[in-house]
Amino acid sequence: MRISELSAQSGVPVPTIKYYLREKLLPEGERSSPTQASYGVAHVQRLGVIRALVDAGVGIAGVRKVVAVLEEPPENPYDLLGAANAAVTPAVSTDLDLTAAFALLDRMGGAPQHCFPEQIAAVAHALATLDRAGFTVPDAVMDAYLEHLGALAEAELAATPDTSIEDAVRYVVLGTALVEPLILALRRVAEQVAASRRFGSGAP
Amino acid sequence: MRISELSAQSGVPVPTIKYYLREKLLPEGERSSPTQASYGVAHVQRLGVIRALVDAGVGIAGVRKVVAVLEEPPENPYDLLGAANAAVTPAVSTDLDLTAAFALLDRMGGAPQHCFPEQIAAVAHALATLDRAGFTVPDAVMDAYLEHLGALAEAELAATPDTSIEDAVRYVVLGTALVEPLILALRRVAEQVAASRRFGSGAP
Repeated sequence: MRISELSAQSGVPVPTIKYYLREKLLPEGERSSPTQASYGVAHVQRLGVIRALVDAGVGIAGVRKVVAVLEEPPENPYDLLGAANAAVTPAVSTDLDLTAAFALLDRMGGAPQHCFPEQIAAVAHALATLDRAGFTVPDAVMDAYLEHLGALAEAELAATPDTSIEDAVRYVVLGTALVEPLILALRRVAEQVAASRRFGSGAP
Repeated sequence: MRISELSAQSGVPVPTIKYYLREKLLPEGERSSPTQASYGVAHVQRLGVIRALVDAGVGIAGVRKVVAVLEEPPENPYDLLGAANAAVTPAVSTDLDLTAAFALLDRMGGAPQHCFPEQIAAVAHALATLDRAGFTVPDAVMDAYLEHLGALAEAELAATPDTSIEDAVRYVVLGTALVEPLILALRRVAEQVAASRRFGSGAP
């Protein structure tokens, strides 16, 4: 199909498609003449992934990393999932005290070798932000986070498709980044439901 | 203290403090002369809350809502927690099909009356983003989300301080918005730990 049809099918404007082509996030189409290229289903799928990541707040640098993983997936499933996960983990300053983050990792049954430095740095950064605001997560609540987020991650991982490497990477990348707004939105609803249960107000 | 000392104590630059004063996010100091005002501990605390929210990605409109809740807290605890929670829930288009979101609410044991429209809209928006990307959350994973996020919310709510309304609002507002990056970061680490367990790689 031509670029105009690719735009219609994907819902992405032509100038944006041209930008993604220049940025090499989208592979070139097949040249059908010196001024025309032809695009296929793979382009529509790739545009869907890019738009979804952008909508989820992932920057162009993150999209570039995801595309790199999709184009040259590592062979070992652990490295594959790790690279996909790390690609959508926003970079934060590594100039942080990692002690408390490593302590939480330990309580989750993990070891430093299990994690990418970005992931530990993200935990440390989140803890530092809470500290600066003078907010302490109560011990019982932190215990609940570690327990329930661990269980949630196990369920997510158990559902990783084994049909192809592309499917697995797509699942981890989109499942990690895109599902975040859903998890946060569900948590807020859950808090509201719990509050109505506790205080008996707002009930039908 | 003078504005220069307030800046030093809070780590917020003087021009930013002046901006917050103009935006009425920070109450005026006590006039000590026609050109000078005096600030106190309450200003340092308020600046800590504002900076924390801004760092957590909450926009000025959201900060304004939080400040309004802090300044005039509702009397009923359910309304109080709801208003605090809703204040930090980003507004999304309400021009969305809410059917799937209400179905999830029902599975969580909640009813539409329990929730603020923004919260249901946020779930619908997250589901629509996933749809657009062609990503389906597997049933078993969605079950895990509802179960574990529900348990997590119960634990959070059980730890709400009952020392004062200000403390409760501060806990809900900061606990909802500021803890989000921690939850997301811990989830990624948990996925990594689960992957290393499943594939036996990266172990010590």
